[in-house]
Amino acid sequence: MKITALAGGVGGAKLLDGLAQILPPEDLTAIVNTGDDFDHWGLRICPDLDTVCYTLAGLANQDTGWGRRDETWNVLIELSHLNGNDWFRIGDRDLATHIERTERLAAGQTLTQIVRAFCNAWGIKSSILPMTDDAVATIVHTKDQGELAFQEYFVHQHCEPKVTSFTFAGIEYCRPANGVLEAINAADAVIFCPSNPWVSLDPILAVPGILPAIKKKAVALSISPIIGGIALKGPAAKMFQELAITPSALAVAEHYKGLITHFIMDISDRSLEQGISELGVKTKASDIVMKTEEDRRRLASDVLNFIREKE
Amino acid sequence: MKITALAGGVGGAKLLDGLAQILPPEDLTAIVNTGDDFDHWGLRICPDLDTVCYTLAGLANQDTGWGRRDETWNVLIELSHLNGNDWFRIGDRDLATHIERTERLAAGQTLTQIVRAFCNAWGIKSSILPMTDDAVATIVHTKDQGELAFQEYFVHQHCEPKVTSFTFAGIEYCRPANGVLEAINAADAVIFCPSNPWVSLDPILAVPGILPAIKKKAVALSISPIIGGIALKGPAAKMFQELAITPSALAVAEHYKGLITHFIMDISDRSLEQGISELGVKTKASDIVMKTEEDRRRLASDVLNFIREKE
Repeated sequence: MKITALAGGVGGAKLLDGLAQILPPEDLTAIVNTGDDFDHWGLRICPDLDTVCYTLAGLANQDTGWGRRDETWNVLIELSHLNGNDWFRIGDRDLATHIERTERLAAGQTLTQIVRAFCNAWGIKSSILPMTDDAVATIVHTKDQGELAFQEYFVHQHCEPKVTSFTFAGIEYCRPANGVLEAINAADAVIFCPSNPWVSLDPILAVPGILPAIKKKAVALSISPIIGGIALKGPAAKMFQELAITPSALAVAEHYKGLITHFIMDISDRSLEQGISELGVKTKASDIVMKTEEDRRRLASDVLNFIREKE
Repeated sequence: MKITALAGGVGGAKLLDGLAQILPPEDLTAIVNTGDDFDHWGLRICPDLDTVCYTLAGLANQDTGWGRRDETWNVLIELSHLNGNDWFRIGDRDLATHIERTERLAAGQTLTQIVRAFCNAWGIKSSILPMTDDAVATIVHTKDQGELAFQEYFVHQHCEPKVTSFTFAGIEYCRPANGVLEAINAADAVIFCPSNPWVSLDPILAVPGILPAIKKKAVALSISPIIGGIALKGPAAKMFQELAITPSALAVAEHYKGLITHFIMDISDRSLEQGISELGVKTKASDIVMKTEEDRRRLASDVLNFIREKE
């Protein structure tokens, strides 16, 4: 079964890791959000791509949810000592990724080519694709501070400003990266990983050509990133609230209404199953919390089994 | 006694450190070669300025002669793993200097301002000045490979190509950095540190305005970087040979003929004293090898005493 999965950061990366451990590498393609990408210290930083790659390579820092394991911080320590810009915490090993990516971009390689080269170096066999090779920047519109660049909102201001909407600068002119539409078209199912709907998956869905391609699929399955009204990680629930939507698995399913055919919620949210079904979506309740490596494989397995189920 | 010293890398930095330990900070200004500066990993790297600053701050790696002590190499290790450009070895702590310098240059600060800020952060009280804030690049003309950028010759090719001459690209359009001519004019003596004459001090002397300012001084003193026909560090002796000049303290004194008034050679080169005197230069033989911290202070003290000597 060929799977193409849309993913943002940590939650998406964990499910992808589970899928990668079950599926033959040629049957799994990940399409990763690049709306969070930005320039810092003169370097191009792609947080979601790196989180996905580090996770699949077994190089991720499990405690923080971002960056590398066995990390050291000497560059940041010394840069702080020089009164440098240290609000975005880049570890030494992680920094090498950004330096080499920036070097390769300057030499004319596409982000897609660079990710492929890095995956080869890190032993990742599944296909990881950026949603686009073009520059797209998620803009967070806030109640009190106007427009904020995503990392300014997310990291520097710790998601504290109240949001009013999101836009993706450059999205109308960007093209899907080489292989993205082909992977969606060739897939038996498209999976919406348990990533933030507003700022992780919506940018991917906004890339011209991706939405129509997904709408043609027989199976598009979403796993809720919200459990019991809260997000396991990140500001998804807070965003729903500030946008005057009660955060819940139901709200997530409604967000993707008309686009998804299958929806997996946590067992603890089973009371919402009826409402979600009424959206015309096949539902399944499962234990969707991924604390251990085994949890990742179990949820990946549940996803594949759900897709295989006949009516 | 106000001292202004011209310096390149390791040897110059050591003598400066000795001088800085003896002189009140306001009485010592160093003018440092920037001809070796180059861009690498998208960052501006200033090897001689960094060697001087790290040495005066007590942060230098005593074993290598470049870079930081207590250094780690995780960025370079990971970058190598990604098949990155790893011939120029940048340690993690050292890298922070280059990142912050590049950030500040991009923000419009001059190199002079940046060096001052770094010196403040590192507790350096003497005045360290780049020879110029403008871009100057030392070009090594070689017998078999034509023109080579300095670090290509020096680090990547380990000084192996045979040299035929040196030029300093951009030198005719550059201006001395703010404070450089003032420091020379105000000095009781200008010291030519034991640095490579061809590629460390010649670029400084070629900055428009510096040579005439030095020629006006009553005392300009050079310490030989060549002892017994060999250079303690670096390719100075090899360069003399390839330029068909027998490397010696005498050859160094001849190189600066008409410019220096005083010359210090090693005790072991005392047989050359007569010849050097005949250039119209006051000579002194001293133990000029600086192995220990104490050696630095001793040589600095010898230099100051020699300047104070009456005929």
